[in-house]
Amino acid sequence: MKKAIVLLVVLFSLNVSAQQDSEQDSLNLRKIYDLALLQGKSYDWLDHLSNKIGGRLSGSVNAQRAVDYTKAELENLGLDRVWLQPVMVPKWTRGNPEYAYIQTQGGPTNTVNILALGGSVATPDAGLRAKVLEVQGIEQLEHYGRKEIEGKIIFYNRPMRADLIHTFEAYGGCVDQRYSGAAEAAKYGAAGVIVRSLTHKIDDHPHTGSMSYGELPVNKRIPAAAISTKDAEYLSSMLKLNPDLDFYYKMNPRNFEDVESFNVIGEIKGSERPDEIIVVGGHLDSWDVGDGAHDDGAGVVQSMEVVRLFKEAGIRPKRTIRVVLFMNEENGLRGGNKYAEVAKKNKENHIFALESDAGGFTPRGFSIDARESQFQKIKSWEPLFKPYLVHYFEKGGSGADISPLKNGSTVLAGLRPDSQRYFDYHHAATDTFDAVNKRELELGAATMASFIYLVDKYGFDDIKNEADILK
Amino acid sequence: MKKAIVLLVVLFSLNVSAQQDSEQDSLNLRKIYDLALLQGKSYDWLDHLSNKIGGRLSGSVNAQRAVDYTKAELENLGLDRVWLQPVMVPKWTRGNPEYAYIQTQGGPTNTVNILALGGSVATPDAGLRAKVLEVQGIEQLEHYGRKEIEGKIIFYNRPMRADLIHTFEAYGGCVDQRYSGAAEAAKYGAAGVIVRSLTHKIDDHPHTGSMSYGELPVNKRIPAAAISTKDAEYLSSMLKLNPDLDFYYKMNPRNFEDVESFNVIGEIKGSERPDEIIVVGGHLDSWDVGDGAHDDGAGVVQSMEVVRLFKEAGIRPKRTIRVVLFMNEENGLRGGNKYAEVAKKNKENHIFALESDAGGFTPRGFSIDARESQFQKIKSWEPLFKPYLVHYFEKGGSGADISPLKNGSTVLAGLRPDSQRYFDYHHAATDTFDAVNKRELELGAATMASFIYLVDKYGFDDIKNEADILK
Repeated sequence: MKKAIVLLVVLFSLNVSAQQDSEQDSLNLRKIYDLALLQGKSYDWLDHLSNKIGGRLSGSVNAQRAVDYTKAELENLGLDRVWLQPVMVPKWTRGNPEYAYIQTQGGPTNTVNILALGGSVATPDAGLRAKVLEVQGIEQLEHYGRKEIEGKIIFYNRPMRADLIHTFEAYGGCVDQRYSGAAEAAKYGAAGVIVRSLTHKIDDHPHTGSMSYGELPVNKRIPAAAISTKDAEYLSSMLKLNPDLDFYYKMNPRNFEDVESFNVIGEIKGSERPDEIIVVGGHLDSWDVGDGAHDDGAGVVQSMEVVRLFKEAGIRPKRTIRVVLFMNEENGLRGGNKYAEVAKKNKENHIFALESDAGGFTPRGFSIDARESQFQKIKSWEPLFKPYLVHYFEKGGSGADISPLKNGSTVLAGLRPDSQRYFDYHHAATDTFDAVNKRELELGAATMASFIYLVDKYGFDDIKNEADILK
Repeated sequence: MKKAIVLLVVLFSLNVSAQQDSEQDSLNLRKIYDLALLQGKSYDWLDHLSNKIGGRLSGSVNAQRAVDYTKAELENLGLDRVWLQPVMVPKWTRGNPEYAYIQTQGGPTNTVNILALGGSVATPDAGLRAKVLEVQGIEQLEHYGRKEIEGKIIFYNRPMRADLIHTFEAYGGCVDQRYSGAAEAAKYGAAGVIVRSLTHKIDDHPHTGSMSYGELPVNKRIPAAAISTKDAEYLSSMLKLNPDLDFYYKMNPRNFEDVESFNVIGEIKGSERPDEIIVVGGHLDSWDVGDGAHDDGAGVVQSMEVVRLFKEAGIRPKRTIRVVLFMNEENGLRGGNKYAEVAKKNKENHIFALESDAGGFTPRGFSIDARESQFQKIKSWEPLFKPYLVHYFEKGGSGADISPLKNGSTVLAGLRPDSQRYFDYHHAATDTFDAVNKRELELGAATMASFIYLVDKYGFDDIKNEADILK
């Protein structure tokens, strides 16, 4: 009986304390959202990054200006430490504006909109003119074989599926055409490749992005460009009428030697467990067209906002909160790899990393790369997010820059904003500041800060112990 | 024992049948979403309504063109019946473009952006020039009293709260300034009113909307205009420096006699219970500035798409599905009232009504006005929507046009899209087709059709019986 009473008292106390904690958490989340929505800084920072700096491709002057600017802004926040982490990055330049047209026998030239893919080699100085073979994907090359492909321009035209609710899934189903399409077509002797832009929207804006020649020797590399969806549909229609039409394009991008750049890092030291590190980040580089406002200016300023919100809200974290603005996500991931490499060398203990790299849209939740027990702990926080309409807590990938931190115990997560509009802007000239809604951006920052607040408060120690016991 | 076995068999059968139903439902929802995303018509319809017709204020030629167009399009769908329901609506015209400026003693004039509120009287022909008293809401008028107010322009400048997650809540906290501000200020002898636009965005676009003079005699009515948020902040700053500045505005809107217009209605007759009616609708009228693409062109084309999706998917409803395109939501609600009046007169049995009137953004779920037991039945369908990221099923208001159907047994619901951007466009020149994302619009239509599919299949009879038993 006595035992039972003791147990009851203990259970009651635990319950009261859990309830008080939960109330305190609710209040702190509300404080975080209020500060983000009423006195947020993320939108002003994004204005500067987009409109005063602009596109920030790795190795460019603008990338360096973004490093300087964000470092200075982090220093203004009065963090415990702000530093630059050197990293060598690829340097590729677009050169003159690309030029392309379709020409039928004796017919007029019809200009179409293209953009060189990042990393592509140039066409010959006089441009490249050839017949076109339209395919729906790399897997069709084998069917046609060298005889049909040699000397031609391969036109990859598989569209993103519109029926998939998660647009990133639709992107994932097509991106091989852009990334490996040139390398694969070159094996069959193709003269060049043209890739349908990766967007659901039918418009005039081509979308660039990274590509790789893999192991292909330099003299075998062929020029690769994205064509706007509207012109992809046009070209496809023209090919049905005139399979013998010529496609002409001219572009002179260049690959240079690697140059030095930096990850920008700032941190608030943990008051109780400074050696346990929580990372929040986005990537500072962007493509050269547009201003990289959604990709990934949004993630950068939201991550900066997270540490600012901690300071403003007077929340002293127990663990170390580190904001990392990664360099070179778009065409190399050198920043992400370097960060993980240094962390490993210094035997740093990262308990959690969160990346925002899916646009500055209304936050829906998080995709979480963790062990089941860690995931369940995170799931238990879900009710705290209900007032903010944040409802998506699912297992899945996190973010490219933080993925090198994966080691089986560090919990990784990616912010998942509404994804419907993302590919309207992604890697295109339309990815500009005006395409970002202030409230949506701020809600994302507050949602990230709230998640980090809970991770910092509760950690994953209990789960680690449990795992140890299981050994 | 025999009884127990029978019971088990019954339970097992029920379980198998429930599971089969649920699988069938999943497949049908997937079919609906596929059709909406792959072969949707809503976006094309909205293009026409927005770009070929445009703003559709009640009583205007454009409103009639919208009636003709949507009736013809519904007829093309091969519904069982399409008809027009006559309704008398108010007619108000904006007249010449409004003109307004701020002038300090001996200083220059600074033009500001205003729009007459819908229903406002004109200024005198030569315009209205007066001193300005800035207030944060109607409740402050009493504090100032007639002495401070008489002959002045009352400037209502309470902004929408940015900290509220549901932007409609922020709107609800300010809309009294626009709707009743003039009537209340006139009681204290004010010469006119200027109301801060109801949007979170700080820009140059004034947002109009309905206002009422209540019981105020015609000769006491004073002109009322919305001022853009940027100019509201400017005027407020100027007033701090120069409390004696003059505000001048000139506008010549006119109120006419009521004219005849129409609700546009189409239906698919129910195969088993044709007398049980399910309504889905939006409102056909819009303000005269912009194209009314979000408000409520989106709701109109989504509602039309619901019946089209039923036809395309080959789903023959058990109950009658009726699409109703209401006239005059913006400044009178005459269409909604007329529809309910005729339904009552004809003793029609409406079991459910759904309205989409919150913009064509990514659907988050539904706000439901129902008895607890009805609500719980709807909640049980929530898992079916999870693949579509539709998660919000909460009790609350439905839609203005369907609210006159409220009778304690009809279930009412409103589509709840993401609301963060809605007031960027609401009632302003920016509410145009290009502000609507095709996928977001289509997802909304599919979400509505899915909800209607479930209501048609399961109805609320069991609950009605339960309520009868309780009597």
